[in-house]
Amino acid sequence: MSAQVRPSRPRQPERPVRQENLRTLNLELVFRHIVAAGGPISRTELATSTGLTRPTITRIAEELLAGQLITEGGPAHNGRAGRPRVGLTLSEKGPAGLGLDIRADGLAACIVDLTGTVRHLAFAPSAGRDAPDVLAGLAHMADAAIDAITAEDLTVVTATLAVPGPVHAGIVQSAPALGWRNVDAGALLRGATRHLDLPITVDNEANLAALGELYASDNTLSSFVYVSGGLGIGAGIVLDGQLMRGARGWSGELGHVTVHPEGEPCPCGSRGCLQTYASLPAILSDEPVPAGTTPDAAITGWAEAGRPATLAALDSAGTALGIALSDMLNILDIDTVLLGGSFSLLASWLTANARAEVQRRVLTATWAPITIRPALLGPDAAVIGAALTSIDQIRQHPTTWLALRPSHSRPTAPA
Amino acid sequence: MSAQVRPSRPRQPERPVRQENLRTLNLELVFRHIVAAGGPISRTELATSTGLTRPTITRIAEELLAGQLITEGGPAHNGRAGRPRVGLTLSEKGPAGLGLDIRADGLAACIVDLTGTVRHLAFAPSAGRDAPDVLAGLAHMADAAIDAITAEDLTVVTATLAVPGPVHAGIVQSAPALGWRNVDAGALLRGATRHLDLPITVDNEANLAALGELYASDNTLSSFVYVSGGLGIGAGIVLDGQLMRGARGWSGELGHVTVHPEGEPCPCGSRGCLQTYASLPAILSDEPVPAGTTPDAAITGWAEAGRPATLAALDSAGTALGIALSDMLNILDIDTVLLGGSFSLLASWLTANARAEVQRRVLTATWAPITIRPALLGPDAAVIGAALTSIDQIRQHPTTWLALRPSHSRPTAPA
Repeated sequence: MSAQVRPSRPRQPERPVRQENLRTLNLELVFRHIVAAGGPISRTELATSTGLTRPTITRIAEELLAGQLITEGGPAHNGRAGRPRVGLTLSEKGPAGLGLDIRADGLAACIVDLTGTVRHLAFAPSAGRDAPDVLAGLAHMADAAIDAITAEDLTVVTATLAVPGPVHAGIVQSAPALGWRNVDAGALLRGATRHLDLPITVDNEANLAALGELYASDNTLSSFVYVSGGLGIGAGIVLDGQLMRGARGWSGELGHVTVHPEGEPCPCGSRGCLQTYASLPAILSDEPVPAGTTPDAAITGWAEAGRPATLAALDSAGTALGIALSDMLNILDIDTVLLGGSFSLLASWLTANARAEVQRRVLTATWAPITIRPALLGPDAAVIGAALTSIDQIRQHPTTWLALRPSHSRPTAPA
Repeated sequence: MSAQVRPSRPRQPERPVRQENLRTLNLELVFRHIVAAGGPISRTELATSTGLTRPTITRIAEELLAGQLITEGGPAHNGRAGRPRVGLTLSEKGPAGLGLDIRADGLAACIVDLTGTVRHLAFAPSAGRDAPDVLAGLAHMADAAIDAITAEDLTVVTATLAVPGPVHAGIVQSAPALGWRNVDAGALLRGATRHLDLPITVDNEANLAALGELYASDNTLSSFVYVSGGLGIGAGIVLDGQLMRGARGWSGELGHVTVHPEGEPCPCGSRGCLQTYASLPAILSDEPVPAGTTPDAAITGWAEAGRPATLAALDSAGTALGIALSDMLNILDIDTVLLGGSFSLLASWLTANARAEVQRRVLTATWAPITIRPALLGPDAAVIGAALTSIDQIRQHPTTWLALRPSHSRPTAPA
């Protein structure tokens, strides 16, 4: 026999840690232990949990304090019974992350600090769907948010823009719900803001919303699917605490999963996609949205008033959602589904039918139950997730913020 | 604003390396570099690539040589032009891995050595589908394989059994194609073999086959879906070189993805599953398989003879496969599909229709092409993957073999 097959070779053979990186690695190790503590932690506890010496901890703590990454708190309750805690905690000043989102009911901007607290959350109606108009509107919101937060001694370090479609190397490949194709959203945004040197990351909104839900659950949720319903439908997949982006970052195109192979045509070119049954335009059918309201608000209002056409559309949307979700869960083996975006507002009309299909169609559902429920952060998951993704860069690599510090006191906007 | 959400905390805070583990870690590091080299590598090259000192490398090489994990080769060509190479390579004696598989055309057993070379591959017809009969048949094959290989100075360290269904904690939860439910396949196998102390791992056959293909591709394939067609249909998902098992190890239930929501009933309790269109029994419809042949051979023979009913069944199987695969690829974002198991033999009749559906239904296919082709290892992927998975345990953690060494020279079978 000679079929030679080679068991897994490490793709990048590991290397031992070298002295020159040790200082950075230890500082980041200590900082991540402070993040993981979720509350005040003493230098002694840090020495125990990291295995580093007390003098090393002391030196690193000084560096983190000077850099506004942590503060030294007085007595504070840790939320449980027992004696109050003192120690080192994440700073509420210093670096901040900006998130921006394009959704069915308008535009949104959010800023979070290092502790993960939302410090700014603003909404505005969108002036149409054309990319330059949408991004000019978001640039205006970003400028206003950065101005507002500077007064609180917070510096926005990086921005993350959520878009409803697959992104590659910063370019929105396709966003059928907005009619976008190959849009350099980061460049349009940067060209319209006053903060020309702000690093901007563009990412899929369902992925960012899934990260928002992961953060918000404080890691009690480790594997789930976040379904974002709106003008289109997308999904973010979290498996074992990690976002599963796929080979090129385009995973989770739930809206284009086939429900009926010979169904209605979809703008994507296929037929019978979930999007043709369960997106907001599909649920509205040809009914115009009354002036001054949003598609979600119109559907919710009609459903609450018992309008038969709306209720029937929601029924078939729920069934179609359940069929497509079953496919997704059979493939991924995940037992929790969070309905987000506009679906978080419509969940009470969608969930029963979706559950019935999932119960019937997911092979493992007969012995392992599946949970379908509204997202924790509701329709704000994507913008909060985008802001948290921005600040998470500093939480993972605090030394990049420390390296920026000389420029920290100068204004972020050109005079 | 006070919605506090906590960015990613490390779930298991890292710890620095301690002295007592250093010896093991360095030995395993060096061994993995020898695995990764894929051919002879000198002590000097190992010192450079690992960053360890030459005396440390020398000491570790002695230990690996004494443990039959590596050999020191004379001049040998590395397959490219230039001067012959000398150096350390993986041993063709010492530890071996056993794989066992239950497939549509019978039972299979395989043994591979550390180099990944198949040293034994055997097939036998299955006496029915009842679990005790099937596992007694496999136990007999395992005993024969271990006896045959002992003469070549190879010791089977661990066995991996491939089963067509989801597995949890060693129990086959459900294998609709065999009519199994909650079967402790490892215990039945162990009870029937003479090698009562052999560690046995039970795993899903599509997952193991996907690993087999990953190994066989020498990591040139990093993200792909392996589709296993047979009595049932399953899939193994490899993303960025890693098997994606899902939250509970039950991912890839492609056979139960819905093709038509109101299609034919499936043994799983749902309707219109891919399995009802494209499994071997579905393609055969009610046509009995002639005595002395297998379902795959019967279908292939009829298709080659141009039998209209068979060709029509293969056409609709290909279309259904394409619809279900499109759902999978929209969700996962993977651009390569390997048709394996019996589908590797039927690929020439299935691929055109499957490709047409994928081209039309996968959102990203219009700008990023998708490849569908037969698996490299054909129907043997699962049994070879199972054997490689067994030996890979030693490749990842060679110290477990070294710890076993005192027992290495005693016979593995009781006298």
